[in-house]
Amino acid sequence: MAIRYPNGKKHTYPARLNQSEKRLTDTTFSNRGMTLEDDINTTNSYYLNRGIAVIHKKPVPIQVVRVDYPVRSAAVIKEAYFRQASTTDYNGVYKGKYIDFEAKETKIASSFPLKNFHEHQISHMKQVESHGGIAFVIIRFSHLDELFFLPFQALYTFWRRMIEGGRKSIAKEELLACSIPLKLGLSPRIPYLDAVESIYF
Amino acid sequence: MAIRYPNGKKHTYPARLNQSEKRLTDTTFSNRGMTLEDDINTTNSYYLNRGIAVIHKKPVPIQVVRVDYPVRSAAVIKEAYFRQASTTDYNGVYKGKYIDFEAKETKIASSFPLKNFHEHQISHMKQVESHGGIAFVIIRFSHLDELFFLPFQALYTFWRRMIEGGRKSIAKEELLACSIPLKLGLSPRIPYLDAVESIYF
Repeated sequence: MAIRYPNGKKHTYPARLNQSEKRLTDTTFSNRGMTLEDDINTTNSYYLNRGIAVIHKKPVPIQVVRVDYPVRSAAVIKEAYFRQASTTDYNGVYKGKYIDFEAKETKIASSFPLKNFHEHQISHMKQVESHGGIAFVIIRFSHLDELFFLPFQALYTFWRRMIEGGRKSIAKEELLACSIPLKLGLSPRIPYLDAVESIYF
Repeated sequence: MAIRYPNGKKHTYPARLNQSEKRLTDTTFSNRGMTLEDDINTTNSYYLNRGIAVIHKKPVPIQVVRVDYPVRSAAVIKEAYFRQASTTDYNGVYKGKYIDFEAKETKIASSFPLKNFHEHQISHMKQVESHGGIAFVIIRFSHLDELFFLPFQALYTFWRRMIEGGRKSIAKEELLACSIPLKLGLSPRIPYLDAVESIYF
């Protein structure tokens, strides 16, 4: 079923990507993370179509090993592997500022495990901030469908605590104190730029 | 052989990506574009390591259709297809500003064919500029190994001329008038941020 925005515009995901990801989801991750990703992609399309921001999800990094060329115009990749992303999933520009973020969700109700982030993602976001960019994460507690906007600086405080031997997660009450709750809407679905606006502008 | 910068730091490409791209190159594109891409990746590593900018190449978008899981930790993609990129290849942050660019080369000596760009890349760069980002292209004439930094606004003038029925390429003398020549160096290899600095800051 085609989703239509209140403005009458038809929402379309890149058809083939969506198809491939759906298949992957079906076979491997049991829908883990897809809802959040879909919601963010829908949000980014909304921001793009309304002329609010240009923010895209980066393609999944894949190492291609073998390609067949039955005809020159139709290369078929026959052997490839998923690689670990070296940066975050989303980036772009909003009001001239560089925006960079990652979205993660957990099924745990009382805390958010920091192992959801890779060390190179943390160091990437740290570099982004040191160059004047805006870095943050969107965290979803899937159990109650709660969403939080956590600025990188806050995330980094919890990350450092872990590195120094402290707890390996962010307690829910800590998150409530350091983040901005994001309320799911229709357009945009996840109004994360409102949080960006309130913190950085 | 490991490449070493004059500062003694060892330069490393992401090993597996490099391997895969080399294989692809061997079989399909006869080295087309790889030199320029390698040089830009080297340059971006230099800028990153020196704390000058955080600019990365986006992964090649691939539609994954079939994945085998001999063991859970080692997914093997058995059928996938290259998709057309919807944005540009490189983006990141420099001095707080959003940077977005594409790199292309031609074997033609006297002009640069505009068909090297896709319409959605042009509209993407147009959107980036309208949101206060910095968009440009790096053009290489492989015959004489000449490199030019062309701001998006100049590229867009030539693009519009084509759309309105004019010539489908940028004449070399036009390019000389509208662009900044980039001199290949050792560190950085392609000092494109010098051009960014001179135009936008």
